[in-house]
This record gives sequence, C-alpha cells and structure tokens, in this order.
Amino acid sequence: MAARGRRREAAERRSPLPDLSWQVGRRAFAPVELLSQDAIEEVHDKALTLLEETGIEFMLPDALRRLEAAGHTVDHDTQIVRFDREGLMEAVSKAPSSFTMKARNPAHDLHIGGDRIVWGSASSAPNVMDLDGGRRPGNEADFQNLVKLNQMLGTCGIICGPPVEPTDLHPSTRHLDMVSDWITLTDKIHRNMTIGTIRAEDGLRMIKIAHGLDDEGLRANPRCSMVLNVNSPLKIDGPLLEGATVMAEAGQCVVVSPVALAGAMSPITLSGSLIQHNAECLAAIAYVQTVRAGAPVFYGSLISNVDMRSGAPALGTPETVTGSIATGQLARRYDIPQRTWLGSTSNTVDVQSAWETMFSLWAAYLSGAHMVYHAHGWMEGGLTSSYEKTIVDSEMISMMNALARPIDLADADEVMTAIAEVGPGGHFFGTPHTMKRYETAFWAPMLADWRAFEFWEADGAVDTTHRANKMWKQLLEAYEKPAFDAGRADELAAFVARRKEEIGTTEI
Amino acid sequence: MAARGRRREAAERRSPLPDLSWQVGRRAFAPVELLSQDAIEEVHDKALTLLEETGIEFMLPDALRRLEAAGHTVDHDTQIVRFDREGLMEAVSKAPSSFTMKARNPAHDLHIGGDRIVWGSASSAPNVMDLDGGRRPGNEADFQNLVKLNQMLGTCGIICGPPVEPTDLHPSTRHLDMVSDWITLTDKIHRNMTIGTIRAEDGLRMIKIAHGLDDEGLRANPRCSMVLNVNSPLKIDGPLLEGATVMAEAGQCVVVSPVALAGAMSPITLSGSLIQHNAECLAAIAYVQTVRAGAPVFYGSLISNVDMRSGAPALGTPETVTGSIATGQLARRYDIPQRTWLGSTSNTVDVQSAWETMFSLWAAYLSGAHMVYHAHGWMEGGLTSSYEKTIVDSEMISMMNALARPIDLADADEVMTAIAEVGPGGHFFGTPHTMKRYETAFWAPMLADWRAFEFWEADGAVDTTHRANKMWKQLLEAYEKPAFDAGRADELAAFVARRKEEIGTTEI
Repeated sequence: MAARGRRREAAERRSPLPDLSWQVGRRAFAPVELLSQDAIEEVHDKALTLLEETGIEFMLPDALRRLEAAGHTVDHDTQIVRFDREGLMEAVSKAPSSFTMKARNPAHDLHIGGDRIVWGSASSAPNVMDLDGGRRPGNEADFQNLVKLNQMLGTCGIICGPPVEPTDLHPSTRHLDMVSDWITLTDKIHRNMTIGTIRAEDGLRMIKIAHGLDDEGLRANPRCSMVLNVNSPLKIDGPLLEGATVMAEAGQCVVVSPVALAGAMSPITLSGSLIQHNAECLAAIAYVQTVRAGAPVFYGSLISNVDMRSGAPALGTPETVTGSIATGQLARRYDIPQRTWLGSTSNTVDVQSAWETMFSLWAAYLSGAHMVYHAHGWMEGGLTSSYEKTIVDSEMISMMNALARPIDLADADEVMTAIAEVGPGGHFFGTPHTMKRYETAFWAPMLADWRAFEFWEADGAVDTTHRANKMWKQLLEAYEKPAFDAGRADELAAFVARRKEEIGTTEI
Repeated sequence: MAARGRRREAAERRSPLPDLSWQVGRRAFAPVELLSQDAIEEVHDKALTLLEETGIEFMLPDALRRLEAAGHTVDHDTQIVRFDREGLMEAVSKAPSSFTMKARNPAHDLHIGGDRIVWGSASSAPNVMDLDGGRRPGNEADFQNLVKLNQMLGTCGIICGPPVEPTDLHPSTRHLDMVSDWITLTDKIHRNMTIGTIRAEDGLRMIKIAHGLDDEGLRANPRCSMVLNVNSPLKIDGPLLEGATVMAEAGQCVVVSPVALAGAMSPITLSGSLIQHNAECLAAIAYVQTVRAGAPVFYGSLISNVDMRSGAPALGTPETVTGSIATGQLARRYDIPQRTWLGSTSNTVDVQSAWETMFSLWAAYLSGAHMVYHAHGWMEGGLTSSYEKTIVDSEMISMMNALARPIDLADADEVMTAIAEVGPGGHFFGTPHTMKRYETAFWAPMLADWRAFEFWEADGAVDTTHRANKMWKQLLEAYEKPAFDAGRADELAAFVARRKEEIGTTEI
C-alpha cells in the first residue's frame, strides 16, 4: 500500500490525471430512421419466411430437442430447425425490453434500455499493439493491462471480453484466469467465457463466489454477458449454444450477434443482409427464450461489408451506418435492447482509424443502440487491440456522451443582461455570467490539444497518437486494484487453483 | 495540349485516378432536434427583444439610412440600430427558402434548399501546410493549387473563398487575381471578394464577362457568394456592409455569419449564444432584404466555444454539434437555407484532426445544413489550409454522401432465393446475386486502405496522411483547366490588366 501510494504521488507530481469519472451515456435525441414502417414489416415477414422454409442449423442435439418440444420442425440429420412462425414470435415476445445488470461495485451497475447507451471494451482481438512494442500476438500481461485501462476509463461501462486473447495461457484453463482477472482487476460488469458447458459453468461459479450469491441470487439479475455469434449464414455452433443454454438458465445476459458482412457472409445488398440478419437474430433470441422465458438478451447488430477486391472486412464504412440504423429500427420493432459495435479497418492509429471509429460511433448513436461492444481500442477489423487507440476512443466517446448536456434556457434573463452590458464589439471573458460558469461550461478534453500552433510546436509538436501513448502509461502507473472482500478473494483463488488441477491440460 | 495529354497519360500509367465525379449531397434522414418548439420560440422572442432594446451597430451611414427609411430606430452617433419587431420579421420573411446558383459549367449548378447539402472548400486561412513544405504563410502558388484540387474533387461543390490567402499579392489588386483565378481555374461556383464597394463591383463585372451576362442577366440568379460576418457581439463592419449591399442589389448570394465562440464573442452558455447568434442573423438578413427583397441569403451558423484556459477557439467539439443542431432548428423556423461549416483545432493532420472534422461533418448533417463552408482542408481553428487534409476531408464527405444510397427491397425475392441456395454455413462470394452487383454495391474509398496488415506492412506501412500526400500530387499532375470561351478569357484578362493599372498601389 505504501509503495503504491508513493507511486501514485509521483505520477501526480508529473502530470495530473484527467477526469476519469464514471459516465452514463444518454442519447441527446431520438434515433433516426431510414426504412419506412412498410419496409420494416417486409424485412420482418421475409425473415420469418426464411426461418419457416430454409431454417437455421443448430449444431447441438440438446438445442434441437428443446426447439422440437417448443413446436418447431427439426431435421435431426441436418440439424436444421424450421421455425413455426407464431411459436417463434411468442418466444421472442418474452425477451425483456429493459433490465439491470449488477456489477461487483454497485456504482457500476448498468441500466439497460431507454435512452441509455453503454460503451464497452474491445473484445477477442488476437493481437495487441502499442507504439513502443509494435504489433504482437496477445498475451496475459497485455490482457491485464488493457483490462486495467478499461477499469480506469470512465467511458468504459463493461468489459465485453478479453481486449486481447492471452494466447500464452493454456486454452483449457485460460477461462479461469480470464474470469478471475476480470473479477479482481475491475469492479465493472464483464463477460463470462462460454465456449462449452464446462467453461460457462466455471465462470458462473466464480461470479457467485465474487458476488456472494447462491444460484437463486445469481438468477435475479444478469451480472455477466456472453456473445452468441451466429456463424452466418444460418448456422450456430454447438459449444456456443451450450454456453448460451447455461447462461440463459442462470438468468445471465446473452448478446445475440450474427456477423453479416455483406457480400461474404450475407447477401451483397443491405436489403438482403437485413433479412438474413433479422432471421438469425430472431432464431437465436427465440432459442434463448425457449431455454428460459424472460432471460435478458440483446438484439445484436453487426452489419458491414467486405472489400470486394480482397474479401477482407471493411468496418466503419457508410454501410456500417445505414446497416446499424436499419437494425436499430428492427430491434425497436421487437422492443428488445440493441447491441452494436465500433470498428476500424486501419492498420495503424492514424487519420483513417479515427474517421472509421467516429463513423461507427455515430452509427451506434443514431441507431438507438443500448450497448456498444468493441468501443475502446479495437482496430484492424478486429484483429488487433491498441493501447493508444483505447485512449483515443475513450476521448471520442466522452464527446458523444457530452452531447446530452442540455441547452438550458433557465439563464435567458441573465443572458439578456450580460449581452446588453457587453454591448456591440465587446467580449464576454470577464462578465459575471461567464465567471460563474467558466470551469464547467464546456466539455473538457483528455487528449485533444487546442493550443496555438506556436505553443504546440515549441512543446515538441507531439501528435495525438503519441500523446495517447504517454497517457496510457500514466494511467497504468496510477492504476489501483478495486476493493475486494479478502475472504471472497481467497475463495476465488482456491477455486481457480482446484479447477486448474482438475482440468490439467485436458482438452475441454 | 499535346504536352498536357502526355503528362496525363504518364500519370495514369503510374496509378489510376480515383473516382472524382461530381457528387450531389442529399441527406438520408430528417435533421434531428434538440430544442422544444417552446424553446425555439423563446430564443426567437429574446433575440427580437435584444434587437429592439440593445440593437446592433451598423458601421456604414448608407446602411443606417436604408434601415431608418424602413422604419427602424437609428442613432447616427453610435451607429446603433434598434429594430422594429414587425418590420424586421416582414423583411426576414422575404428571404427565399430555395434558389439555384448558376456555375460557369451548368453541370456544376447548385440547387439550394430541401434535403440537399453542398460541401465547399476551405476559405481565408492565412497559412498553408503540406508534409513536404511544412507550415508557411499563404501565397499565390498554393492558392492556385488548392483551387485546382477543389475543382478536381467531386465532393467540393463550391469554392467558398481563397483556400489560403495569397499574401504575396498586393492587397489593393489581389481581389482581381483571385476572382480571375477562380473563373479560369475552376468552372464551379465561387466567391466574390467584397471588402468594400470597389472590390465587390470589380468581381461582379468579371463574372458578367465570364458568363456573358448584362446586369439584368446577372440578377436573375446568384452566381457567386460572399460572407457577411458579424463582428460578434452585435457589430457589422462598414466595408463588409458595402460589399453586401452591392451583392444584394445584384441578386447575388449573401451568407450571413455571426461568429459565436461561446465564452468570448457570445455568452458562455449555448442558450445565450443562441439568442445573440439568432439576433445577429436576423438583423443582417433583414438588412439584405431591405436592400433588395428576395435576395438569396443563408442563415449562417457558427457556434462553438473557446478553450477557457487559453481563450483559443475550439472547433469540432460537442458544443459544435449541439450548437449547429439548434441553429438548424432556428433556420427552419424562418425557412431560410442554413450555412454551416467544418472545423478542426488540431495543429497537424492526425487522429485529433480527423475526429474533430468528422464530428463537425455530423454537426452539419444532423443540423439540416444546406451549405457547408470550410469543408476541404481547413485546420488549426481556421489558421491553416492543408493539402493532405483537403484529400482526407474529401474522403470523409464522400462517406457522408454515400449514406443517401437507399436500402432498396426491390431485390427481396431474389435475396430469398440466394440465401436458400447458399444455405447454412456457405458464403455469398460467387452467387449470381453477388456477381451482378459486386462492382457498385458498396461505397468505394479513395484513400482508406483496407488491406490486411501483412500486405499493408510489406507495401511500406504508409499511414493515411502520407497516402493523402501522394494523392494530391497525383491529382495536381492530372489537373486540366476547364474549357473557357477564348473571347471571354481575353476580355477578362484585359479587364484585369486595365483595373490593375487604374488601381496601381492605391489603398482601396
């Protein structure tokens, strides 16, 4: 403690930390609309027809049995489920339109729904990058550092998954280390690792230990999330379905997410991608509601396109914006919270990376998204997490959040006096109206440099990416572990040790 | 011609030019709203009260006489005009809600109003910057180069003014060179130089020569624009009023633009800035309509804030977005086309410059702006125009324009067949539905690099700013002067030569 206190003191002497306080994002205006109500109904209707006639492959016998029992038509050889239209919509209607996710620290609880928007961490990048070390495969140290940064940044509402894969840890027990790190390095809501029943159950047991809950207590609120990806087109992998089954039964949050990269994994037109994407969302949501009616789910939007010259994904494009807005309209049609995402294709933290991320920030905002994955540091089409971009993205998110500061006419009479006193050709710098407000009137940047060119140049002409480099180091130096009950910490460590021994290097 | 043809051929061998075709921007969805109708009416009412009670300084005796004759109260000592509320609104109501600006090339005419959005060049930066030459004072060669780039870029609808000031030209005759360059180097609509009656009249005579018009022909349509800045708070300079008078009498376009940098030139709260900004717009628009009822004007929005630590302007901030959206609501209340602007404070073409510009792009788009000044290459709070940023901004604008591509369900039946044929786990790369559309399905970048990291790295790991550097050189090499009637060109050159002789080095 003393050493840490001294370290923090030294850091503060060098440069004060920016404002890192917890931010609750709210939209400043209603989501926008691109499709007419008729078009939305046509997408809805065609999606149901697709589910009736072509169906979706569920690669898990247990899932097939559950769906068959719910009245849908199952071909056990091909594992294709053809849905009964009414039964499907009845299941979908059971998904809640809002819910509260509970964090280890109640200050970090998330109220999902309405005009709130939660921006989360990056997730599942295989590589990591920073200006000093360059691009390299993910590892445990970087995983932990990026989790710490996301804990510190007030813009980050949820740890969506591993910001980078800790590929140096053994695959069979990696989930234990990751969930343990999330629990101890942050007190924000995080993911559960859910590839297969064993991992999903291990994670929930750890969360129960950390939160001091029994099964019933856990079921009362979601305290973690998972992503149920559709292997688009029209296929859902078995291990993910196992995880989703465990999560839904425990009342935990399942984010349904097709991957509609138009031209590759979905039709090349947005019309076609929307129909397929909607069908995949509805089928997966219906499955979750069949496991447990009322289980919290997100209608997850992921529509973008591929570069038709190379087949590579292109993120942060115009199609990202229009696709997100359209899926937002569909999510609202079903009254289910929407999850979307930020993305950049750029290979470096440059101008392109910023415009792509800013474009997808607006895609999320305008679509009415309630949760945004991959919002801190994701780049290179999801293949890399960047330390510098984590800081850059946090700054951009804080700009979006600042839009909700109201334009309040309560001071209108005071304003009239101030303007009359200043009069033609004057200025407002020293007026009482200004002096009362100047410290908090405007959004304040953490990273932007607004100084005149001459001052900026004399101070080394440091560009934003290099300023971000300095800032993440400063934050990591100031990082402190959040408080955690010692008894629970011990119990958690003992559980992880025991499970590691039990699993060993067995493939699970 | 032969030499030019060879040069172009050589350029094309090296690397094909990107798609530079003329883009007509249209909004994909309705503008958003931040203020209630009651709040808008309160801003309106308070602005009128300010104009009645505090008034605005018009620093031109002729303007004072015109406004007095129109029934407003004039103090000839202080030059302050206190407006009659009804007379003011009657004048404002005469401003047209839409009009057509005619270019030398009819393909570049601009239809102002409705859901159209025109993105223009940068204007009036004192400095210029590129990666090779660094930052330097503006000069004629850079002025001409940037005009050429704006002529080539399909995203640029109008030359809003000198992208950079040609400070090496004599101030008294500079306007002749600038207007002559605009006329001959581009066939797009451009600005007139209007500081004082002499300059404004010279410019209009040149435009009449270039377009082959007499006075009456010129008055039929606006063919150039000027900016009538308010010297906020509440003051309008004499030479600009002279220019506006000449322009309005000739039926040319006047862009009214206060400069409401909250905390300095307008009250620190957006409520106060809006009231003052609205009063200034209404007063200037009323003046223009008093000179000539029905003269084309823009309600020009320029609200942002200053950095309260340094007093320097901060552009592309959250206050830019909310301020623009609110002024857009006011412009629609008066049914007058809105002009807004893009801005970045960054001192270099880096991540910050991109997010600031993208933020103000969205401010313009969501506010319902019809015309956007400073949209290609402006940076450093308007103190510098950048070659590289001109290209970067063009790319971002083309992304905004691509949002209007409709999501068309006409292919819905074809899509259903395509998805059924591909089936679970397949892909869409080779389907007939894809093959018919792959060349035009998606927005195509000019500058973004979507290649996989390994290819990008092997090709030199060139970041976007350096790619933009290569591209503006490629464009300038391929530039060709637009066609221009030889007789008119000679007449124009003779006019410029004669006027230069007449003016000499006299201060005008």
